[in-house]
Amino acid sequence: MMTSPWSPETGSLDLQTLGRLYRSGALTPSAVVDAVYDRIARRGDDHVWIYLAPRAQLLSEAAALEAAGPTDDPLWGIPYSVKDCNDVPGMPTTNALPEMAYVPETTGQAMQRLAESGALCLGKVNMDQFGVGLVGVRTPYGACSSVFHEDFISGGSSSGSGVSVAAGLCSFSVANDAAGSGRVPAAFNNIVGLKPTPGFISNSSVSGGGSLKSAETMTVFALTTADAVAVGRRMGGYDVSYEFSKPEANTVDLTISALPARFRFGVPGGSALRFFGDDEAAKLFAGAIARLEAMGGTRVEVDFTPFEETQKLLYGGPFIAERAIAMDAVVEKYRDVIHPVTLQILETSSDYSAKDVFAAMHRIAALKRDTRATWADIDVLVVPTTPTIYRKTEILADPIKLNAQLGIYTNFVNLMGLCGMAVPNGFRPDGLPQGVTFLAPSWQDAKVASYGAAFHKATGLTLGATGNPQPD
Amino acid sequence: MMTSPWSPETGSLDLQTLGRLYRSGALTPSAVVDAVYDRIARRGDDHVWIYLAPRAQLLSEAAALEAAGPTDDPLWGIPYSVKDCNDVPGMPTTNALPEMAYVPETTGQAMQRLAESGALCLGKVNMDQFGVGLVGVRTPYGACSSVFHEDFISGGSSSGSGVSVAAGLCSFSVANDAAGSGRVPAAFNNIVGLKPTPGFISNSSVSGGGSLKSAETMTVFALTTADAVAVGRRMGGYDVSYEFSKPEANTVDLTISALPARFRFGVPGGSALRFFGDDEAAKLFAGAIARLEAMGGTRVEVDFTPFEETQKLLYGGPFIAERAIAMDAVVEKYRDVIHPVTLQILETSSDYSAKDVFAAMHRIAALKRDTRATWADIDVLVVPTTPTIYRKTEILADPIKLNAQLGIYTNFVNLMGLCGMAVPNGFRPDGLPQGVTFLAPSWQDAKVASYGAAFHKATGLTLGATGNPQPD
Repeated sequence: MMTSPWSPETGSLDLQTLGRLYRSGALTPSAVVDAVYDRIARRGDDHVWIYLAPRAQLLSEAAALEAAGPTDDPLWGIPYSVKDCNDVPGMPTTNALPEMAYVPETTGQAMQRLAESGALCLGKVNMDQFGVGLVGVRTPYGACSSVFHEDFISGGSSSGSGVSVAAGLCSFSVANDAAGSGRVPAAFNNIVGLKPTPGFISNSSVSGGGSLKSAETMTVFALTTADAVAVGRRMGGYDVSYEFSKPEANTVDLTISALPARFRFGVPGGSALRFFGDDEAAKLFAGAIARLEAMGGTRVEVDFTPFEETQKLLYGGPFIAERAIAMDAVVEKYRDVIHPVTLQILETSSDYSAKDVFAAMHRIAALKRDTRATWADIDVLVVPTTPTIYRKTEILADPIKLNAQLGIYTNFVNLMGLCGMAVPNGFRPDGLPQGVTFLAPSWQDAKVASYGAAFHKATGLTLGATGNPQPD
Repeated sequence: MMTSPWSPETGSLDLQTLGRLYRSGALTPSAVVDAVYDRIARRGDDHVWIYLAPRAQLLSEAAALEAAGPTDDPLWGIPYSVKDCNDVPGMPTTNALPEMAYVPETTGQAMQRLAESGALCLGKVNMDQFGVGLVGVRTPYGACSSVFHEDFISGGSSSGSGVSVAAGLCSFSVANDAAGSGRVPAAFNNIVGLKPTPGFISNSSVSGGGSLKSAETMTVFALTTADAVAVGRRMGGYDVSYEFSKPEANTVDLTISALPARFRFGVPGGSALRFFGDDEAAKLFAGAIARLEAMGGTRVEVDFTPFEETQKLLYGGPFIAERAIAMDAVVEKYRDVIHPVTLQILETSSDYSAKDVFAAMHRIAALKRDTRATWADIDVLVVPTTPTIYRKTEILADPIKLNAQLGIYTNFVNLMGLCGMAVPNGFRPDGLPQGVTFLAPSWQDAKVASYGAAFHKATGLTLGATGNPQPD
């Protein structure tokens, strides 16, 4: 019998590695399932899982795959986790409020396509309750930590998604992003986050309608950009059952290409580049700029004011009323058990008038207009995914303001219809990671993926907290 | 000296006729200006003009054109009128409220392009106050009548635009359309109305911001579809100064093509085809269907319920709050002099919440989604432009309800982002005209123009009330 070079304790779960070993016969989905459940057990109570499917169930599913033999699908036999706001048939959905739990019998197109790919769903993972937050501490299931330091936040709202991938417990995680939930946990856990153009991956699998229904989107966390793209390609596409799915989704060719020899990348100009005193984060971002220049890029300082104003409008304006459509009845029914910070936020949603909404929509249209000259001048915009990272104790002491600070480079993205790819950008001297995000206008998903992939490769960073190298 | 075959009293003002005569030397812009002013004088007090530029001024402008010689521009020397909600430098803008009059020094891109084309602006024409209405009687300047019967309404809100073209007083008129104002007067005056995709012709020339800023559009009334297209092509294009102008505007090729030998046209299915007891209108629309079938078309009865629900949402839902942004301060200041019906309408705008707007936007998105299968099944949708026509006395007796009835085939169009071309469809036995409108999704402006042009040609109708035949 051939000895596998893949270690159950530390072997990489990236798609390229697993796919190669599966198809060479050196590894089986059953072996990966066993390895993954052992790893999960070894991590102990890390607050990642809200629901973990029984090992026997996953072994049975893996055995069924093996009996039929590998397909060409890159997701065949690949283990993944799902943020608990998305429905998976047979697994409870809680949105991080256990009193609301239900077990769906069906799901939407994007999740259904994953199920049909031969990927293996391990379970449902933790999140800021209802997806409200970028921190990961607003949950009754206990706060996840960054995989690199127990005292620091994992990021949110897709906290369990980020940690489950970075800790080597699964190959990818399906999450969601309205204000940055599909990007911030990537930054705090040294992984990638694909935040597609709103309307590319249908949200019909999302429980309860979401908090920014007209613009939020499902997302993918993975160890590499190539992996995220493989999953996103599978999940994407027009879905007639979801009113904000867009027909253009069927025209997207989500493929990674080599970068041009010369390109122009935008960075926030003037005083817009802020790190709230985190000098190490500033140094890391300066390093990202230098790296892009070395790759052939020319830095262009862009007028960031329209992005900043949009960022402030997301939660400082009437758009929060969109969330109230889904949440007011929930607040009414579950007021006594909702997380206190979340409750405080949700109760501020109802004071805006119809005129306020139209005025804000006009303003957003003007701000989008104001960015068009910038987009025409650059190939891609690069921002720090977050300005800094906080300790859990800091967030608990000042939960609203610090959360808002974390979103200054993420909050504007969906309101402006942009697509983004969040990728790792190295570590501070204290061992905490930082990320950068590549952004572009609607339907340029393949472009931001290509920049993200090339950049990540150039960093030479290992994957998540696994210590495994990036595959060739 | 050569005798012109063109009669100052009745000669056609269509662009083809004038262009040919101008370039052969048989006619001059000065002669046309003189003819037009004589025609205007002969019509007497028809309530068309709110402001008519002095004849001497237009003769001076015409002389300047002649001194420089004709250009290739199809609008060179072409006389036109402007709905009084659009700014023309040096002419007062009133929005049909004389107390609000001001004289702008500048205008927006679309009007500026007309000015630079060598077209001759005669003046500003009547309208339902602030563009609120489809009837033409809500104005302190006196109600226009259909050119075919003094007792019947001209349609609105672009009442003076429709009549000025149909009566042979100018070649085209620039107007606006939120709910049907660029189409209804075409139907009631036997002319064409080009209602482009929202975002194609910039609204930056519109005074006061408009009533449905995010979706309304400038429009063109003309004697023929080819003329409307020539004007629309000139006015269209992305305008960075207007936040709802769309970059796609620069990609539109607004050209009339021959129809395919076989095509599929949708008509409202089942009980959606309503004429409120106007059997002659029903017969005329049946005739339009037969004509399209004779042209190679296959009739497809479409599920009209999503269009109908959208139509009702325009004024029966929170979208009226968008109008309130522009109008509340005006109502506050001019309450005592605003038309009483208009005041009643404007005062109902303020009761909706931010949540109502998002719920309505979600519903509109779902309704648009519900029409996609229909659009995939047909080349073009054909509707009666209006279900019927009313006497002025009928409108005065029941101003709100009858106005709403007139909009059942027009109100949904801008909210759904559609483009349309309204064209004549013949006359009832009592001599009153009816129209049909060809509709298609965003950016198919050239297609609806092509269907409109072919259909109008097939009717063999003369132009407006001029008695002049359609040019070859």
